[in-house]
Amino acid sequence: MNRIRLGIVGTGIAARDLHLPGLKELKDKFEIVALFNKTKEKAIQFSKLVDNDPIICDTYEELLENVDAVDLALPVQFNYEFIEKALKKGVNVICEKPISINVEEGKKIVEITKNYESIVYIAENYRHFSAFDKIKELTTKIGKIYYLQWNLWIYMTKENKYANTKWRQNPEHIGGFISDAGVHHVASMRKIFGDIKWVYGTVKNIADYLGGPDLLSSTFEFENGVLGNYNVSYALDGKNRLMIKGEFGDIIFEDDIIKVVNYRNKTIHYYDEYKTHDEDSYKKEFEDFYEVINGKENDLGNVEEALKDLAFIEASIKSNGEKRIYINDLIK
Amino acid sequence: MNRIRLGIVGTGIAARDLHLPGLKELKDKFEIVALFNKTKEKAIQFSKLVDNDPIICDTYEELLENVDAVDLALPVQFNYEFIEKALKKGVNVICEKPISINVEEGKKIVEITKNYESIVYIAENYRHFSAFDKIKELTTKIGKIYYLQWNLWIYMTKENKYANTKWRQNPEHIGGFISDAGVHHVASMRKIFGDIKWVYGTVKNIADYLGGPDLLSSTFEFENGVLGNYNVSYALDGKNRLMIKGEFGDIIFEDDIIKVVNYRNKTIHYYDEYKTHDEDSYKKEFEDFYEVINGKENDLGNVEEALKDLAFIEASIKSNGEKRIYINDLIK
Repeated sequence: MNRIRLGIVGTGIAARDLHLPGLKELKDKFEIVALFNKTKEKAIQFSKLVDNDPIICDTYEELLENVDAVDLALPVQFNYEFIEKALKKGVNVICEKPISINVEEGKKIVEITKNYESIVYIAENYRHFSAFDKIKELTTKIGKIYYLQWNLWIYMTKENKYANTKWRQNPEHIGGFISDAGVHHVASMRKIFGDIKWVYGTVKNIADYLGGPDLLSSTFEFENGVLGNYNVSYALDGKNRLMIKGEFGDIIFEDDIIKVVNYRNKTIHYYDEYKTHDEDSYKKEFEDFYEVINGKENDLGNVEEALKDLAFIEASIKSNGEKRIYINDLIK
Repeated sequence: MNRIRLGIVGTGIAARDLHLPGLKELKDKFEIVALFNKTKEKAIQFSKLVDNDPIICDTYEELLENVDAVDLALPVQFNYEFIEKALKKGVNVICEKPISINVEEGKKIVEITKNYESIVYIAENYRHFSAFDKIKELTTKIGKIYYLQWNLWIYMTKENKYANTKWRQNPEHIGGFISDAGVHHVASMRKIFGDIKWVYGTVKNIADYLGGPDLLSSTFEFENGVLGNYNVSYALDGKNRLMIKGEFGDIIFEDDIIKVVNYRNKTIHYYDEYKTHDEDSYKKEFEDFYEVINGKENDLGNVEEALKDLAFIEASIKSNGEKRIYINDLIK
């Protein structure tokens, strides 16, 4: 298989800190041949980090003439326009999550992909974490599953590099961090238990330096009947904890350890734990993107799956603490 | 102050296992002078546990002629009728929680108490646990409070003595264990943060041997703006955990230990813990009942507070996973 001539579009934090390290290890698969950034100087700076000598393009259109695929690492409000332009030129796309600023625009992306042969791959790196596969496997050890709870306290300081990007401070994407980071968590939960039927959510705004709401507490039900409870804040600190409760035990994911606890007669009668290992999920998504270009099914970068992740968040916010919203009503 | 001539009405598990040990230590305040039970033989058996020689009454009316106060430890559906009869005879009442089978009947109890001088004291023993006072005190150490979460996994075996009472197997009280035990938790949360504005809840039924639903996940907001999340199951086992999240730290109540954790720059910079001590909360409620009879304000056994506890549960169930319900709309 040939190397993919890749153009990086948007040479900001994501391209530099998340994508580039993996791409450097995948030189047999990708060659970074072109860069485009709105502020050209940033693309020039970025080019110094790339081992070969990519061209710095003045326009996105120029870049599209020189590549087989683009890596879109842009403020999310540009995804739709940039994906469409690439498709029209027969260029494959890997694009940072969330798929779009809201479900309405995400549906448009899903629609246009149907009209073109080129791949659109949404880079949801959480789908590539093996920890969630392991959790799914371990759920067989606790009987019928009834409940999932995920508490995430992802305190972002005023100095946080993501919190300081302009497009996050004045978000055009629904819910700010609630969707930007939230789709990761939804993708993970859906990887374990599949599609979600309905969501109820309440949001609050705690920190004035974070764009949009920064606390979400939501209740939802998977299509398989498991009741869920996802609580996240970007303004509060603490210990993250995913807990799955079954007929006779729990799976608890905390501090990089997955614990299996079985109860009998109100005491623990079985306990086991698995240490998760570090893995470059960004590298893995580029490897998978390469496979998909070469004919593999696009299950992990699928636009419809990415839309469902976002729909969960949009439903939580539109629920407004007042009523449940059905995911299918939102994405139909 | 004189000793109270107390009649015990309903000589089942609650009277025997919960009330009697405390009453035996309060002989300077209460003298158990009369017993009534629908099945007289059970009252006779109970009388053997009492040190003095109480009369065994054939009717509740007969008992009311011989006492200053009654201890109602009945299936909850009898509370209203038995309270009313006592009030009409000028007899003071201490009555097991929940106040009533539902809010409608609870409102009637609140109304009739206004027409009589005698005391009606709802025995909500959780209001007497000092742990919740300690938690309230410690919340000052974590800045502005935003969120409370209480997970309770109170697995009841098929052999559980409470689960095997007929009135719990075929509950006339709303939600079965969800209200019967649930009012304890609501009382505790309200003791910490005060009144609750609205509730959203979803219930499920897991165990076929428990009457009614046995899993509740609810979201709610206190009048003070704190968002809450109360998750309880009587069919699932596990570790109970109350967590309160503030601006710069957590209060965590787990395994009889109250922990205070403060974070700074994403690390723990202060930690402290308090061991709670065993206390006979039933004895404390009888002591308080005695004080109230003798003129103390009835703040801990107040019928309106007990009604608000029950209203939270009824709102959770009536919410039916579809919409939030305001407590004031329910109790007005």
